[in-house]
Amino acid sequence: MPITPIVQDRIDAWNAATVDFGPLMLGEPGSWSSARTQYLEALTVHPTPEGVRVEEIQMGSVPATVVTPEYVEDGRVMLYIHGGGYVAGSPSGYHGIAGNYAKLLKAKVYMPDYRLAPEHPYPAAIDDTLASYKWLLHQGIPAQSIVFSGDSAGGSMVVSVMVAARNAGLPLPAAGVALSPWANLEHSGSSMTTRDGIDPTVNLGGLNLMAKTFLQGALRNDPGASPVFADVRGLPPIAIHIGESEVMLSDAMRLATHLAENRVRVTLEVWPGMFHVWHLFAAVLPEGRRALENAAAFLEGAWKP
Amino acid sequence: MPITPIVQDRIDAWNAATVDFGPLMLGEPGSWSSARTQYLEALTVHPTPEGVRVEEIQMGSVPATVVTPEYVEDGRVMLYIHGGGYVAGSPSGYHGIAGNYAKLLKAKVYMPDYRLAPEHPYPAAIDDTLASYKWLLHQGIPAQSIVFSGDSAGGSMVVSVMVAARNAGLPLPAAGVALSPWANLEHSGSSMTTRDGIDPTVNLGGLNLMAKTFLQGALRNDPGASPVFADVRGLPPIAIHIGESEVMLSDAMRLATHLAENRVRVTLEVWPGMFHVWHLFAAVLPEGRRALENAAAFLEGAWKP
Repeated sequence: MPITPIVQDRIDAWNAATVDFGPLMLGEPGSWSSARTQYLEALTVHPTPEGVRVEEIQMGSVPATVVTPEYVEDGRVMLYIHGGGYVAGSPSGYHGIAGNYAKLLKAKVYMPDYRLAPEHPYPAAIDDTLASYKWLLHQGIPAQSIVFSGDSAGGSMVVSVMVAARNAGLPLPAAGVALSPWANLEHSGSSMTTRDGIDPTVNLGGLNLMAKTFLQGALRNDPGASPVFADVRGLPPIAIHIGESEVMLSDAMRLATHLAENRVRVTLEVWPGMFHVWHLFAAVLPEGRRALENAAAFLEGAWKP
Repeated sequence: MPITPIVQDRIDAWNAATVDFGPLMLGEPGSWSSARTQYLEALTVHPTPEGVRVEEIQMGSVPATVVTPEYVEDGRVMLYIHGGGYVAGSPSGYHGIAGNYAKLLKAKVYMPDYRLAPEHPYPAAIDDTLASYKWLLHQGIPAQSIVFSGDSAGGSMVVSVMVAARNAGLPLPAAGVALSPWANLEHSGSSMTTRDGIDPTVNLGGLNLMAKTFLQGALRNDPGASPVFADVRGLPPIAIHIGESEVMLSDAMRLATHLAENRVRVTLEVWPGMFHVWHLFAAVLPEGRRALENAAAFLEGAWKP
């Protein structure tokens, strides 16, 4: 897999932007705000595609960004749940991936700006994202017109928020795509050791700190935080994309197995040589573009059965 | 998932055709030949699509059937490895699935008539199929023009024969699709108990008898017979399709995990409500047709990178 210099530069910038979080998560002095800003700057280097409109809105009490393509087909809507380990990230870093989805799917893409840890630990992120989904339903958008996608922590939330919606008695979206999901905060998958040090952007030590920062005493196997332990019965079709170089590989596959063994329709794609949420790099990495096209085709299939 | 009366009739006929194998595998008197004929008759009810030519040939020492569509693109070839638990089946039962593949892929489809157990136990089936692949290469067909597919025992052989080819120093095909693979003769996946009695066509007791008949003293975890235990490094992209009702579900997912953790590109599709090799029913079951289309799209992707 060719990691070109421009891809490597963006990986390096991403990694540099995560360095400050380690001391912060250990309780050392420093500014969460400036660390988060630097993190977003490393993401905004990924360009927003031409021909989409970006607006700030409120989804009820949850601030959000909505990305609208030139043409929306059949009132299609995506709820996109950004990543950042539950401690960083906001919609402003994800205009690129949301814009690509918007154009591929001819859908409006809503990105809730859910609250982050440590200020707002588990389950604040899931509560806010569920609230944003409820808001969509309250606008009169049929659940079957809505699909979910998300990356990393947001990839895990694709499943967690569906479970929360089902538990709340809400109608479920048509389908979901989890990109490089952080599916198991126990980190017990074998790739957490076999890929630690190989994964170009994520390492087990950092994940353990983020999990602790997010959970603040909740158990790592809490089914609301680690969907590999959740009751997933009745969920709609879900696709999972995972890079073969990722420490999260095995737990993402465990999520696929768990869903399938509970009668959820699953498609899993494992991409050799690819790294955490390579889809963000679609403008400069053909594999990122192709994976997003596959994700869009999967979601289209749910809309056009 | 709607199992219509015509689908149910064909499932019933398939099940009826397997009844005689139980006593035979237990060593009771009876005719393997007539049981195998009845089994093939239950498969030949699946129609051969219009517009393909079917011929009997020899692939060196291995008898075979080749199915040719009206137009073949770029010398494309599929090696299709039929199922039947290593004790039954022959290409004559698979003209339908081979014809569908031939038309979808614009490829010639070769089906080796490999030797069966108990007369020819492990590894005769794998040896014959490998010999048929060698024959293709000796005709001057580039390995990159060849793809593999197969169902059940043949789905497992998609991987086993690739491993054998790699071990023999041969160039590898472009990609493979394993349909409902019987990937682990240990039968240790959880669906072997959770789906036993639910799977409409396959049960654990029958599988244990077939494994014993095939292995004849070889270990169930022999990596040549159970690819979940094989060294799979270096294999080309592989797609796995498995029905959610199948006793083979968990072991098929284990095969996907094993391939991915060894850096093989994997796509896995789990189809709720679908049963063993539902692709055979493409003419009367939309899910069978759609799954074959997905399989063809995956293989096309390997040809057109």
